[in-house]
Amino acid sequence: MNSPSGGDLYGFRDAQGEQGRSCSVRGYCSPAHESTGPELVRDLVSLIQQAEADNAVKVLVFRSADPDYFISHVDVTRIKEYREEAAKLTGEASIALLFRYLSASRLVSIAQIEGRARGAGSEFVLACDLRFAARESAIFGHPEAGTGVSPGAGGIQHLARLMGRARALEVMLSAQDYGAELAERYGWINRALPAKELGNFVRSLAHRIAKFPAAGVVTVKDRVNAIALAPVEDFRRDSDLFGEGARSPEAQRRFLAALKRGFQTRDAEMDLAGLLGGLADD
Amino acid sequence: MNSPSGGDLYGFRDAQGEQGRSCSVRGYCSPAHESTGPELVRDLVSLIQQAEADNAVKVLVFRSADPDYFISHVDVTRIKEYREEAAKLTGEASIALLFRYLSASRLVSIAQIEGRARGAGSEFVLACDLRFAARESAIFGHPEAGTGVSPGAGGIQHLARLMGRARALEVMLSAQDYGAELAERYGWINRALPAKELGNFVRSLAHRIAKFPAAGVVTVKDRVNAIALAPVEDFRRDSDLFGEGARSPEAQRRFLAALKRGFQTRDAEMDLAGLLGGLADD
Amino acid sequence: MNSPSGGDLYGFRDAQGEQGRSCSVRGYCSPAHESTGPELVRDLVSLIQQAEADNAVKVLVFRSADPDYFISHVDVTRIKEYREEAAKLTGEASIALLFRYLSASRLVSIAQIEGRARGAGSEFVLACDLRFAARESAIFGHPEAGTGVSPGAGGIQHLARLMGRARALEVMLSAQDYGAELAERYGWINRALPAKELGNFVRSLAHRIAKFPAAGVVTVKDRVNAIALAPVEDFRRDSDLFGEGARSPEAQRRFLAALKRGFQTRDAEMDLAGLLGGLADD
Repeated sequence: MNSPSGGDLYGFRDAQGEQGRSCSVRGYCSPAHESTGPELVRDLVSLIQQAEADNAVKVLVFRSADPDYFISHVDVTRIKEYREEAAKLTGEASIALLFRYLSASRLVSIAQIEGRARGAGSEFVLACDLRFAARESAIFGHPEAGTGVSPGAGGIQHLARLMGRARALEVMLSAQDYGAELAERYGWINRALPAKELGNFVRSLAHRIAKFPAAGVVTVKDRVNAIALAPVEDFRRDSDLFGEGARSPEAQRRFLAALKRGFQTRDAEMDLAGLLGGLADD
Repeated sequence: MNSPSGGDLYGFRDAQGEQGRSCSVRGYCSPAHESTGPELVRDLVSLIQQAEADNAVKVLVFRSADPDYFISHVDVTRIKEYREEAAKLTGEASIALLFRYLSASRLVSIAQIEGRARGAGSEFVLACDLRFAARESAIFGHPEAGTGVSPGAGGIQHLARLMGRARALEVMLSAQDYGAELAERYGWINRALPAKELGNFVRSLAHRIAKFPAAGVVTVKDRVNAIALAPVEDFRRDSDLFGEGARSPEAQRRFLAALKRGFQTRDAEMDLAGLLGGLADD
Repeated sequence: MNSPSGGDLYGFRDAQGEQGRSCSVRGYCSPAHESTGPELVRDLVSLIQQAEADNAVKVLVFRSADPDYFISHVDVTRIKEYREEAAKLTGEASIALLFRYLSASRLVSIAQIEGRARGAGSEFVLACDLRFAARESAIFGHPEAGTGVSPGAGGIQHLARLMGRARALEVMLSAQDYGAELAERYGWINRALPAKELGNFVRSLAHRIAKFPAAGVVTVKDRVNAIALAPVEDFRRDSDLFGEGARSPEAQRRFLAALKRGFQTRDAEMDLAGLLGGLADD
């Protein structure tokens, strides 16, 4: 999710986006497969700060230039580093609180998902206000339990509320991949749409919302968040539990075994669910 | 939703209803497209009072004689008036609290929706205990954000709990129309049924429930409401926020622009989502 | 749900199960149609105690040897007896608290449902962490309101959270049977699967989860339960309300009328929804 080019941090790859800063919809486009690491978190902090400071910006759209990956899970070798980047916005070394900051922002955020969104990638998507996925190609997953840890960036809070107890447990205990249609049925995403319609649908919706008066939009967000966005302390607790889990000898052993099998590489993670299942047999 | 005739206030248009006051299922039939205004609210207050006073009445069924409209959003030119009618039942000038009163009543309420239910019309439907819609023709929408205000009659409370955060935000921020099938997938309604089966399905269900002992039915309602019906103060707050929003210069300007384009007329509201989208370009 | 044989209390009917106590997945197989009565509750208490005491056991799978029935509702003639069996685990004479104990356990429980699961049978299924059903044959229902009582073993707590207010009310006020596909759409179960795939799916998932480190699994369960598992006092209250309802003259009269029509027999309960509808005409 590095900005594709320095001067085009918000650059939507369409006519509207290219009109510059007067545009009320800004897109952010991840260039390639990348773990949630310090660079991505730094970019996200910068994006949110700049967009919030510009009253003309009302809607953010996130998508990826890599058709196979939206955003991957955290880089387990750089947890301390990416957490420190998050602290630059929220004062706390936790991406759970950074993601929650986005959910609570006056900005309306929309995720347009064509590829894989797992772990913190799924949690980023869950932090966005709206999320639409390509029916044919989008894949969602929470691999944490497969390495002995638990989702630490808000996934537990969102999934339990969106899907209910049994489906949230299934998703997080199975560490399986879920296609877009099943993700829609489970409430993980708003809707799965045909890939060829997805971009236009999201663009049209983003511009429609951006034209409505800010007052009603902000009130709706605030009131819905008061009901359906978990308190800061619950995000913080999940973040702490992930940190404790990741430092445990059992998780460290699993991380190493997984890294040997290609964990955190583009190719091996095409089938991360399979990698984790094999890991259990080590 | 005026009573079709004075002496037939509860009159179901079927054999059961015509058997008179000994019938435990009462239907209420809206005659034609009408905004949620003082007349409709007065009728609703009267209906609830009479039905609650009659121990033989156990189930209320609401439907519309107009195939295109169930109940429309509030009449934005008569907010003070319809609110005063609501106060006659609950003591508070708010239809949010009137609708919540129905949800908390010992009466089981069922909405049978063949046409449009938007804004307060959707909120009335959400206040009913059960709601079934014609797959081919029913349409749901929350147009409030399109005019700069927020849903004030309980929609935020119900939708956030029924759909979860992302879909509730989508529905209320997009101000789009939603067909019955998508409304079912999002949990807005219990189920979308073929139009030609809908009436029999609802009638049969209403009479089945009405024959069960009151004790179990009331306990189930009370216990479910304790979990899933938001507190009075949250309905009141949303109602106040709608009132404040509607008095703002921005919303007043939008209301006027919308009225010029046919807002609150039967024909223009056939495509209200389109009207609001065009409005944004004014 | 008697144990099929004394020495095979956890005996899965497959190779893994037959490997004995070193196996981390244990299955429990109900032999035939049986109400939730003292024998079943005693067996369940024993199963949970033994499985929790054995650190090697991580996942429990529940299924039935009777293709038509998973577990039936409570035996209304033996309420005091089965409640006393439940007290042996939790100290309180309530199956609501026994079922909740299972939900809160470190053990991951999975229900594999091929036949009918009604009343307490549905509530047992809802207490399991995951539940998968045969699309062609599984049937779910809450018949309590048909006899004037309310679900007392956690059904209200789970259904209101899983389905939202309107669908939970529909299910519990209608006392109708629901097929597996509709149960999936309503969130009653995780998923409906083709009957011939169901067993392999569940077995594979159970063994996958059992191989993951316990730490992450337990943290996920604890954190999800903190959000989505209702407090003990709400289960206790529903249990008390069921007890009070069942002792009322109206419910006693209904129970007798139902028993005359074959209530609590295998044949008559093949269409329990029809039996209850006819009862209302008595």
